[in-house]
Amino acid sequence: MIANTPPMGWNSWDCYGAAVTEETVRKNAEYMAEYLKPYGWEYIVVDIQWANASAAGHAYDPFADLAMDEYGRLLPAEKRFPSAAGGKGFRPLADYVHSLGLKFGIHIMRGMPRMAAHRHMPIEGSEYSCSTAADPHSICLWNPDMYGLRCELPEARAYYDSIFRLYAAWGVDFIKCDDIAREYPRCRREIELISEACRNCGREMVLSLSPGPAPLEQAEHLKQNANMWRITDDFWDDWRLLKAMFERAEKWCLHAGPGHWPDADMLPVGALRQCDSPDGWTRFTHAEQRTMMSLWCMMRSPLMIGGEMTKNDPFTLDLLTKRDLLEIETAAWCAHPLWTTEAESAWVAPRKDGKGLYLALFNLSDKKHAVTVSAEEAGLGILNGREIWSGKETRKAKQLRSVLEPHGAAVWRLY
Amino acid sequence: MIANTPPMGWNSWDCYGAAVTEETVRKNAEYMAEYLKPYGWEYIVVDIQWANASAAGHAYDPFADLAMDEYGRLLPAEKRFPSAAGGKGFRPLADYVHSLGLKFGIHIMRGMPRMAAHRHMPIEGSEYSCSTAADPHSICLWNPDMYGLRCELPEARAYYDSIFRLYAAWGVDFIKCDDIAREYPRCRREIELISEACRNCGREMVLSLSPGPAPLEQAEHLKQNANMWRITDDFWDDWRLLKAMFERAEKWCLHAGPGHWPDADMLPVGALRQCDSPDGWTRFTHAEQRTMMSLWCMMRSPLMIGGEMTKNDPFTLDLLTKRDLLEIETAAWCAHPLWTTEAESAWVAPRKDGKGLYLALFNLSDKKHAVTVSAEEAGLGILNGREIWSGKETRKAKQLRSVLEPHGAAVWRLY
Amino acid sequence: MIANTPPMGWNSWDCYGAAVTEETVRKNAEYMAEYLKPYGWEYIVVDIQWANASAAGHAYDPFADLAMDEYGRLLPAEKRFPSAAGGKGFRPLADYVHSLGLKFGIHIMRGMPRMAAHRHMPIEGSEYSCSTAADPHSICLWNPDMYGLRCELPEARAYYDSIFRLYAAWGVDFIKCDDIAREYPRCRREIELISEACRNCGREMVLSLSPGPAPLEQAEHLKQNANMWRITDDFWDDWRLLKAMFERAEKWCLHAGPGHWPDADMLPVGALRQCDSPDGWTRFTHAEQRTMMSLWCMMRSPLMIGGEMTKNDPFTLDLLTKRDLLEIETAAWCAHPLWTTEAESAWVAPRKDGKGLYLALFNLSDKKHAVTVSAEEAGLGILNGREIWSGKETRKAKQLRSVLEPHGAAVWRLY
Amino acid sequence: MIANTPPMGWNSWDCYGAAVTEETVRKNAEYMAEYLKPYGWEYIVVDIQWANASAAGHAYDPFADLAMDEYGRLLPAEKRFPSAAGGKGFRPLADYVHSLGLKFGIHIMRGMPRMAAHRHMPIEGSEYSCSTAADPHSICLWNPDMYGLRCELPEARAYYDSIFRLYAAWGVDFIKCDDIAREYPRCRREIELISEACRNCGREMVLSLSPGPAPLEQAEHLKQNANMWRITDDFWDDWRLLKAMFERAEKWCLHAGPGHWPDADMLPVGALRQCDSPDGWTRFTHAEQRTMMSLWCMMRSPLMIGGEMTKNDPFTLDLLTKRDLLEIETAAWCAHPLWTTEAESAWVAPRKDGKGLYLALFNLSDKKHAVTVSAEEAGLGILNGREIWSGKETRKAKQLRSVLEPHGAAVWRLY
Repeated sequence: MIANTPPMGWNSWDCYGAAVTEETVRKNAEYMAEYLKPYGWEYIVVDIQWANASAAGHAYDPFADLAMDEYGRLLPAEKRFPSAAGGKGFRPLADYVHSLGLKFGIHIMRGMPRMAAHRHMPIEGSEYSCSTAADPHSICLWNPDMYGLRCELPEARAYYDSIFRLYAAWGVDFIKCDDIAREYPRCRREIELISEACRNCGREMVLSLSPGPAPLEQAEHLKQNANMWRITDDFWDDWRLLKAMFERAEKWCLHAGPGHWPDADMLPVGALRQCDSPDGWTRFTHAEQRTMMSLWCMMRSPLMIGGEMTKNDPFTLDLLTKRDLLEIETAAWCAHPLWTTEAESAWVAPRKDGKGLYLALFNLSDKKHAVTVSAEEAGLGILNGREIWSGKETRKAKQLRSVLEPHGAAVWRLY
Repeated sequence: MIANTPPMGWNSWDCYGAAVTEETVRKNAEYMAEYLKPYGWEYIVVDIQWANASAAGHAYDPFADLAMDEYGRLLPAEKRFPSAAGGKGFRPLADYVHSLGLKFGIHIMRGMPRMAAHRHMPIEGSEYSCSTAADPHSICLWNPDMYGLRCELPEARAYYDSIFRLYAAWGVDFIKCDDIAREYPRCRREIELISEACRNCGREMVLSLSPGPAPLEQAEHLKQNANMWRITDDFWDDWRLLKAMFERAEKWCLHAGPGHWPDADMLPVGALRQCDSPDGWTRFTHAEQRTMMSLWCMMRSPLMIGGEMTKNDPFTLDLLTKRDLLEIETAAWCAHPLWTTEAESAWVAPRKDGKGLYLALFNLSDKKHAVTVSAEEAGLGILNGREIWSGKETRKAKQLRSVLEPHGAAVWRLY
Repeated sequence: MIANTPPMGWNSWDCYGAAVTEETVRKNAEYMAEYLKPYGWEYIVVDIQWANASAAGHAYDPFADLAMDEYGRLLPAEKRFPSAAGGKGFRPLADYVHSLGLKFGIHIMRGMPRMAAHRHMPIEGSEYSCSTAADPHSICLWNPDMYGLRCELPEARAYYDSIFRLYAAWGVDFIKCDDIAREYPRCRREIELISEACRNCGREMVLSLSPGPAPLEQAEHLKQNANMWRITDDFWDDWRLLKAMFERAEKWCLHAGPGHWPDADMLPVGALRQCDSPDGWTRFTHAEQRTMMSLWCMMRSPLMIGGEMTKNDPFTLDLLTKRDLLEIETAAWCAHPLWTTEAESAWVAPRKDGKGLYLALFNLSDKKHAVTVSAEEAGLGILNGREIWSGKETRKAKQLRSVLEPHGAAVWRLY
Repeated sequence: MIANTPPMGWNSWDCYGAAVTEETVRKNAEYMAEYLKPYGWEYIVVDIQWANASAAGHAYDPFADLAMDEYGRLLPAEKRFPSAAGGKGFRPLADYVHSLGLKFGIHIMRGMPRMAAHRHMPIEGSEYSCSTAADPHSICLWNPDMYGLRCELPEARAYYDSIFRLYAAWGVDFIKCDDIAREYPRCRREIELISEACRNCGREMVLSLSPGPAPLEQAEHLKQNANMWRITDDFWDDWRLLKAMFERAEKWCLHAGPGHWPDADMLPVGALRQCDSPDGWTRFTHAEQRTMMSLWCMMRSPLMIGGEMTKNDPFTLDLLTKRDLLEIETAAWCAHPLWTTEAESAWVAPRKDGKGLYLALFNLSDKKHAVTVSAEEAGLGILNGREIWSGKETRKAKQLRSVLEPHGAAVWRLY
């Protein structure tokens, strides 16, 4: 089964916006292979606008010229991805990433390039024309490049099959499909077509849907059609967004399971916004970063690093290689909050092997704050175990009491 | 003042959809000049898609090729409007209509052709590019041709000024601007730009906004920026739509006045849907047509004939030349319902010259029904006058009682 | 016809709240007879809580003891209305008011006193019990005295008939029924029962419904069942409330006519809040009071004086006796705004006799402001007439321009 | 801790409505002591209207006379509860229930009897009057007896303390408080006052709040202030209601834990509606009853039998004594659905002791239907265990496949 546990990797958006280059991707892949792969990290994902030679920063150019083949399928802009020259697409870059023992992913938008429709291009492997498949009224609200497809027509399936054939030929392992996860009910059928094209293309690929918030009432449809989907709008290094994630996590935690993972979005850690300034750095405090990692692991969200990894400082590297914490992603299940108030939250997650459980305590307030949980509330008679961030042991306790920093967290492995 | 009284004319949509031709327009203009002009009818309006050589019926082709000049301004398709050949646009046709003593109007969509932006065409009379003026996210929900403009930029004004300069040069007297009247608050500024371009172009043109329903709470903005605006979605020959107009009319009647007229839409009378079938004919009964004419005149809606006029039968011609009824449009004011129930409605409108008033009674039920109104309710002591449709006189009555056909109407001129 | 023109009178609420006494009512009646009756003022109305001996100010006592007869019908508290002693109810006071040539009105709440139901009292003139008629779940949200009735049962009609019989026996001319006008759809049937009881009781009474805002979509039901109904919540001497009335007036102006009048509420002029402090006085400026009177007259609202009339100063008395202005209430019809913006409003109302019209201009801004209206906009060719507040004449003008004080008004009688 | 596991017992509503008698209560208590107590059943709860001597069936009498003491506290009607004679209240009946080794509960409405306020009775143990504590505007929408309290006043706390003192003196173990669980935000403070009075009264009592649906966003407030609360409106023997419970259960399952239990309402099994007809019997099929019991146990809802227990048939008794199933209530935690579709639902709940888990499969369709779940989806590598209803063993399976009757269920204990 694909995505049997939550996918872990790196995505170029938080550090490079629409403007990442091949060189940067290679360097980050090399870093991951050397420092992070032993901890389970494996995906390298090129985010949006790789077909636009002049893309810059986090904004989009209207009416930009996008590289595409004669079938209206976008190609990497050679200026930014030199190895794509000669029509080779992302194949050389994917090969390189694979050579490092990692997996390769790309971002796509639902639909087709607008000019493919206006130019009446043919759809590869079919008798159809792009101009029949495209829906001139189905546009993304925040990106000017594409038209969505007329999913009631066979032309739509033909086009999506044609692009997934191309991605399979390139050796792609992960697709982040954008402008779709929150577009229910309008895009319900489009999600199904993309999901089917993905599963039928002859290569296993993780299918990730963006942006959020995906609607909770569509949980079963998402579980059937995607491997992960965003549960919020874009997440950045802002405490208010992190605090708000607790409510989202509570709503969605039930729906995490093998092959289908609610996604709390990239981890904005380390060197961010490099496309805007080489000095960009996460605004999260250390406590906040530990809280983020603790929550993402407890709820078993996919983990996608957002920073330029080669600039990681020791704290960041340590944060991303805390083996006992990352183990929660594979060893636990049934995670859910015991309670959440304005000031604090307590989460619990039993281990699948029956050998105890994980308990996380969070300080959601802006002050130092003590959180207490009794053995009874944790579903245990007596408490034995270790706090993961500090390494502190607890023996035969009737309750856990943790004095937490503002926005801080503690996570216990209990027996 | 432009549109000092409600504009009266003919529009090609109800009979020819997107596919009217020059020849048909000329024939209808000739008919109007001969039979209707003496009764106040004067505008000949070419509706949507005149730039599309292959337009047909009432549907739209996505990604159709539209005729345009080098500045991204649409031109009449020469195949359908031969006199436009050689870049003369609508000038020859407008000249011909003027030669008959009539006025000439065209339909436009807000925004610019999508390809004008994708091709980065220059804006006439400016340094700007169409691709900067266009907003790739501002599209019409039902027509695939245009992008709305980025009205916060000077490019938008430049483009709208450029098209109105062209229309003035062609001799256009009436602009029906579409995809805009109900698009508040999104298009509020776009309405203002179009209104200003219209008033500043050097030629007097009536500005009509479609489609409805325009929002009632924007009444003052509409009064300031347009000469007429649709108060409903498209009106057709269906009793349910006609019955529903009574509620709209009640809400909007206050806002009719010199220069600004709430518009109940075209009159679907006579030969309709000629583009689909030459046998098309209005499905309204005679009673319903009299009710429609009575309500439109009482509320002082603009009157735009929707049928192919050369096929008018005697009933239709009589309906459109009932001089005493049409006089209400210019002689009355302050029209409003006395009451409206499920079964009936009574409207009153005093004459501006103080010489009595008009009283209309409507049977909204599906059965023969008697409607009664007392002199007191009509604001008079005693009732003297004549019913317009039947010519029947009333003398010294204390009340009017009219047994009306199903969906029928009676209108009195009272002293 | 009852209420053929808008009722004019005095109501005790604004000056005495729940605590008016017989003595005060008599004094105000005497004042009206002497100073105001020649101008059309005629109703003297005792507002809420006259059955409660200990009522004070503008608040309500829960579980207060209310005077009632053996049939659960409220009686005036003798401590406050001494002439009611011996079971005579309001008869002696009504007689006195009539002796002055005026008319007498009282306030009632829909429903019956709660204790009439809890004590299982019989309903006068029937076999029924109050406890069957009362609906223990139908209560007023702001007054603790009553239960609404179970209008689907004959008991409800029996009770309402019984109280109107009593009021007819007392000689009541005007009923202000409270907790009902905005209680659609819950109280729709209760309105009908009260209306029928009123019309069938053997004495002509004006039926006035409170509090507002009555829902606009119930206009026809209100016109059929009441003579006047409140279009806003309680109106007081606050400019924001007065400014907001322009929007209400625009929505409702269509529905004013013989027998049915949208009601903009009492006029808070002169000495107010006497129950709280004998120094109470309206906070409206002179300009605001003229604006209020101008708008109420133009829209033909009923006029109910809210102040303690015996304390009127010359300005207030003059305001209430401006004969040319008050004449609008009887001579005009079809009033409606020409336009209303943030800063200004213009209203027009033709005379029923065809001899010209009234034009009112309002400054809604907080600064001196010039309002201009052309002859064309007013529906006239040339302007002749007189401004009512200033007496200034205008001859052969093409437009009226009036520099108005902040919140001020001007009203022209034009030919 | 009170309610450390979900309370289990019997409630008189489903079989006797408002009309249960002491004799019936005693007989049911005797039955429970003999047949059900060994399986964990222990509460005997007298539902609504025990103070009304003439209560009958499931409806309410407006303005009925309710038995109360001189402090406005309701007393059992002696006609129905003879042992209450002489002011002994429920003490003798509670004593009897206790003598059988069971616990005793009663129903209350929030607020106080309306007549306690109208009669200005004193509040026991205080200087206050009931008429000050009562809020004449706070009434139940479906029961006519009470006024809610003015919770911002100390009088409210005094009254609630006074009634809980009385219940403690009677020996009450369980309070079902009605007209409150879904009354957020209006009754938020009233819930807190009742909760505090309950905890401070000197006797441990389970506090149960009705009716539902309690609002999900108030979960933390409910967990802090009550031991159980209804998550739906009244539940009856109707498949549509049972099917709808799956969605509620999914939303609320996170919030079950020691001391706080989302409550899916009484179990309408066996002899129901005895007050209406002695032949009343549940309309649920056997399959539906097993589905209900399976879901209630998996989600760890409290279990309250609704039928007249002395009429239980063998099926019903077996249903209520399925020890392995009932064990889920105490042994499992973290229950949640794996998925729920139109046709089926799968739930999982690990055991707290780490020794395996429970897996329930439900057929929500109207046809026989096979539901399949893989070991992987259940969080296990290989499946060993036993189906509880059939006793069938499974060994070393890679998946479970169960062909279920319409509306049927299967529950596995897996290792």
